[in-house]
Amino acid sequence: MTDLEKHQRMANAIRFLAIDAVEKAKSGHPGLPMGAADIATVLCTQFLKFDPTAPDWADRDRFVLSAGHGSMLLYSLLYLLGYEDFTLDELKNFRQIGSRTAGHPEYGHGAGIETTTGPLGQGLGNAVGMAIAEKLQESRFGKELVDHFTYVLAGDGCLMEGISQEALSMAGHLKLNKLIVIWDDNGISIDGAVSLTDSTDQVARFAASGWNTISIDGHDPAAIAAALRQAQSSDRPTLVAAKTTIGFGAPNKAGTNGVHGSPLGGDEIVGTREALNWPHEAFEVPNDILDAWRIAGLRSAHAHKDWQKRFADVDAETRAEFERRNRGDLPAGFEDAVQTYKKQLADTQPTMATRKASEAVLNVLNEVIPETIGGSADLTGSNNTKTKQTASVTPDDFSGRYIHYGIREHGMAAAMNGMALHGGLIPYSGGFLIFSDYCRPSLRLAALMNQRVIHVMTHDSIGLGEDGPTHQPVEHYAALRAIPNLLFFRPADVTETLECWQLALEAKDNPSILALTRQNLVSQRKTYEEDNLCARGAYVLVDSDEDAAVTIFASGSEVEIAVEAHGKLSEAGIAARVISVPCFELFEAQSDDYKAAVIGSSPVKIAVEAGIRMGWDRYIGNDGTFVGMTGFGASGPYKELYEHFGITPDAIVAAAKSKLPAAE
Amino acid sequence: MTDLEKHQRMANAIRFLAIDAVEKAKSGHPGLPMGAADIATVLCTQFLKFDPTAPDWADRDRFVLSAGHGSMLLYSLLYLLGYEDFTLDELKNFRQIGSRTAGHPEYGHGAGIETTTGPLGQGLGNAVGMAIAEKLQESRFGKELVDHFTYVLAGDGCLMEGISQEALSMAGHLKLNKLIVIWDDNGISIDGAVSLTDSTDQVARFAASGWNTISIDGHDPAAIAAALRQAQSSDRPTLVAAKTTIGFGAPNKAGTNGVHGSPLGGDEIVGTREALNWPHEAFEVPNDILDAWRIAGLRSAHAHKDWQKRFADVDAETRAEFERRNRGDLPAGFEDAVQTYKKQLADTQPTMATRKASEAVLNVLNEVIPETIGGSADLTGSNNTKTKQTASVTPDDFSGRYIHYGIREHGMAAAMNGMALHGGLIPYSGGFLIFSDYCRPSLRLAALMNQRVIHVMTHDSIGLGEDGPTHQPVEHYAALRAIPNLLFFRPADVTETLECWQLALEAKDNPSILALTRQNLVSQRKTYEEDNLCARGAYVLVDSDEDAAVTIFASGSEVEIAVEAHGKLSEAGIAARVISVPCFELFEAQSDDYKAAVIGSSPVKIAVEAGIRMGWDRYIGNDGTFVGMTGFGASGPYKELYEHFGITPDAIVAAAKSKLPAAE
Repeated sequence: MTDLEKHQRMANAIRFLAIDAVEKAKSGHPGLPMGAADIATVLCTQFLKFDPTAPDWADRDRFVLSAGHGSMLLYSLLYLLGYEDFTLDELKNFRQIGSRTAGHPEYGHGAGIETTTGPLGQGLGNAVGMAIAEKLQESRFGKELVDHFTYVLAGDGCLMEGISQEALSMAGHLKLNKLIVIWDDNGISIDGAVSLTDSTDQVARFAASGWNTISIDGHDPAAIAAALRQAQSSDRPTLVAAKTTIGFGAPNKAGTNGVHGSPLGGDEIVGTREALNWPHEAFEVPNDILDAWRIAGLRSAHAHKDWQKRFADVDAETRAEFERRNRGDLPAGFEDAVQTYKKQLADTQPTMATRKASEAVLNVLNEVIPETIGGSADLTGSNNTKTKQTASVTPDDFSGRYIHYGIREHGMAAAMNGMALHGGLIPYSGGFLIFSDYCRPSLRLAALMNQRVIHVMTHDSIGLGEDGPTHQPVEHYAALRAIPNLLFFRPADVTETLECWQLALEAKDNPSILALTRQNLVSQRKTYEEDNLCARGAYVLVDSDEDAAVTIFASGSEVEIAVEAHGKLSEAGIAARVISVPCFELFEAQSDDYKAAVIGSSPVKIAVEAGIRMGWDRYIGNDGTFVGMTGFGASGPYKELYEHFGITPDAIVAAAKSKLPAAE
Repeated sequence: MTDLEKHQRMANAIRFLAIDAVEKAKSGHPGLPMGAADIATVLCTQFLKFDPTAPDWADRDRFVLSAGHGSMLLYSLLYLLGYEDFTLDELKNFRQIGSRTAGHPEYGHGAGIETTTGPLGQGLGNAVGMAIAEKLQESRFGKELVDHFTYVLAGDGCLMEGISQEALSMAGHLKLNKLIVIWDDNGISIDGAVSLTDSTDQVARFAASGWNTISIDGHDPAAIAAALRQAQSSDRPTLVAAKTTIGFGAPNKAGTNGVHGSPLGGDEIVGTREALNWPHEAFEVPNDILDAWRIAGLRSAHAHKDWQKRFADVDAETRAEFERRNRGDLPAGFEDAVQTYKKQLADTQPTMATRKASEAVLNVLNEVIPETIGGSADLTGSNNTKTKQTASVTPDDFSGRYIHYGIREHGMAAAMNGMALHGGLIPYSGGFLIFSDYCRPSLRLAALMNQRVIHVMTHDSIGLGEDGPTHQPVEHYAALRAIPNLLFFRPADVTETLECWQLALEAKDNPSILALTRQNLVSQRKTYEEDNLCARGAYVLVDSDEDAAVTIFASGSEVEIAVEAHGKLSEAGIAARVISVPCFELFEAQSDDYKAAVIGSSPVKIAVEAGIRMGWDRYIGNDGTFVGMTGFGASGPYKELYEHFGITPDAIVAAAKSKLPAAE
């Protein structure tokens, strides 16, 4: 058997595992695994650095299947290379409930899956973040401990999605030379030929953003190997444009959209077995070929052993710190720093916008948490995410801790997911809350993957004023609270901002959004309390000595309005309470008793929030009163806007009185 | 005064109106108007075809200020050219509540604003749609009636957003030669120099997608004119890369980010007046310069008069049809077609997926509404949006009615907004509901601008099965219902699908989403009713003869489950009702009496929907029972998923019984 024959048989093992699994599931995408099998074989047997017995080894190469519909390519590889989570039984259980082999690769379903992909372009964005993370970690811990590549297999769809432009231009600018993207250029998308919808010269496009580019025949193992070798030595990120045939080997369907997303069918499978000379049963990989794959897996582990030796030579303190950061544990000084600052705030009672409060908090926390990596989508001065500790990262110096992400919210959020997945770092960003819409697909994936990424999103309501309705979030609180696993925080003052930051940092399995104001807010917390009151999502901020006739719920900047209304109600002899609700999700997670106690039994329940009502019925009931927005905002000075839209203490008082006829 | 001097004074009129308005508002963005004033002056006085006295003339050139933060550029132009909505008083009222001169250009605030911009890149996407619309209309009505350009002024931020790639690659592929994008290449973004975050060769990037490109000095009026002339004769879309100085003329702040988004301040304004030799009071435009602008406005109207003559020469039927389509009225045969098909459905009671139902409906409605333009983001065979009437549009033939948008949900939605804004067309699209996240910023703008765009979004729940949680909408119903003005429809069967399509088409001021199933559903409507029952958003689908103990609310595919549960409850002797809720927004708009009657007073209220609970408390109360999802979905056959997540008739029955202890 020549080397070429051996290569082809190894690649065919991938092809037929994919064909057979899709056929058995009666559902799936055989076209990509069949077309990209040669690439994957060369990459995984000659280049990729990994250890199947230690899939989470920090310095492994990352392999991202951005074209996630080709999941059987990844599952086949993991099985063939000997990853224990991916047995033949798992492959046979493709796309069934509870299997590790979901329709698209799901992070956490089994070790070896580096990220969840499927929504196109996301994997490319994640990979940019992984490559950034590698450079950041390398600059902190040295090449001895951190020196790996990030490989991506991307399809036409990944490159057509807009996020790809944000990702590739970011990578080109930052000269992420250890990022290698292989484009599975099969010329086919679901509707037919890519030429039906696109005429872009992708190689020229990547080159325009400073990438090294190489064009090859994606079925020629020597060409693939030569390209990857060249890519590894480039001083820029590399695009390997690999011409392939989708559904390679299928006698009738190869090269057509018929093989993209449906099982091949019995006759076509018979024909493919003949065409590729693969006379084996379904799911059968001949021993010599399985051995060849497993040997590749074993051989790859040598690099891990070498790394372990180097790691053992490092001083104990550095080792411990490297491990702590990779575990995602916060440093010992964190809690003290929080409490010290909280005491200070209780003493000084500052009035400030929560975006400024966040900056003040970050100046404290960035001092004790060296692994935070800040940034902003070109709104640094507005988001206040850059602190004295966070020098800017530049293409030539990754020792900094702040990334100017550019006007690329989607690319930023996807890259942050990649940084979190890489490990060793806690990425936080800055943007306007309105532009959460621009990065929503990546926010969702962070939630689905349980990744700790923290988004500071300022200018969180009509309180931003003159920029008007295009910039004023109205529906966004509801829309973000709707995403499972995502913590949406809207703190009411500087102390709540500190507490919400603490919660976001401590939530290892959740992404968080901190929605912060442009406008100033007075301190609501009058005394120091060690407990994090925001941790329960909602709490009694102002209680009533007697049975309250009115309970007012509010979040963020409207807490101040609620407290003012409380004062006016008290003057009018109406007993009222104020509940601060910084985080719905955490409140929902409390005991029924706690929730009932906080919600209370006032005959009148009012919620005030500068957004839409959706979500509040849960607490005020459908007969409760909502003081907030019913449609889009407007352009004007913010105090006038609050008057214009009737979100005022007087409106709350009037609503309370109208429901309490006896109180006048 | 030389021509150059005259040009410069005319441009300075823009600059100082912008400077003065921003200064008076104490808020705004003077840098772009100052930098792009030369471009705008040349464009509007020598090239743009328009009529200030008839701003809605169908064949006017469109001018899109994609960099919407530079709104004072647009307002200044509209005032100077003599658009009556934009008086000097309006300019003085910049960024105040109720003014036409909002912080960002708001469509509908005054005639002359072609689209709402501000969220970066959207204007570019809209313009692609306008240019597509021009070609479609030209192929239908001929060059005599339709022959105009679409001009865009875009900033660095527009080009950095991912949507720009989708827009420009679509335009390049479709050879939209009447689209001319002027890039205000000032090299400055909010964080500082663009070079801080991006190194892309934008000219090479556009060229890679087949654009004609021209690079010029954006302060040289002769170069600007020459570029625009060359662009007008290109067979491809054109990028004019115009090097400019942001804040041109400001002695200290020009060329810096200090002039981007803040008033210049008194001293700097004095210095700018000196530097540009503009010794006039705030808001004062010397008569000769105002006259020169107004003459340009008057002269431009000649083209309109010529067009009116040509229009008068066209046959009456064509004139009436052209006008009908531009008014956005539906054709006379529409209602009959709906009723005829509805009768047929009542007779045949087909079982089908609502995505297939939608295809069947479209086959009927596309026959009578020639102005619909279908499409899909590379999911034609899954969305079923292509019918026998809709041949594909190709770069060389726009007589078709179907656009293969490619894997570009965001660019598609933005282009559809542009097509709707252009007028004469009703764009509808296809995509997966999960990918509403990818185009959410454009959906929001369609709602804010009250545009009739219709998005068919299929695979609307865990009912899509094996593709798994990355593709299964869970939070999307709530998140989309949260957007003001947007109609989110989730029809339960083929008749409801027809009715929802009717409502979407009749809603001239609302965008609509039709969330449709992949899986089959039985017909729920057993008899023909002329009334559109979905028009009230929710209605009693199955009533109870006696006082109902249980009311079950459901939408879409879960209505079938609710009806099955109703049957089981009846067998158990429990009186129940089923409410179909195809559209929350329309239900909310009903009278209190109607809403109360539909919601009813059953002691037990249950909602069933394959999404999260958010929103349903409004109808079932916070003590109601919700049968649905609490987190992300899973990969598996869809019937098993419904069982797995407990969204079944039995779960509803059990919930009802648990709340009705006496009923057992």
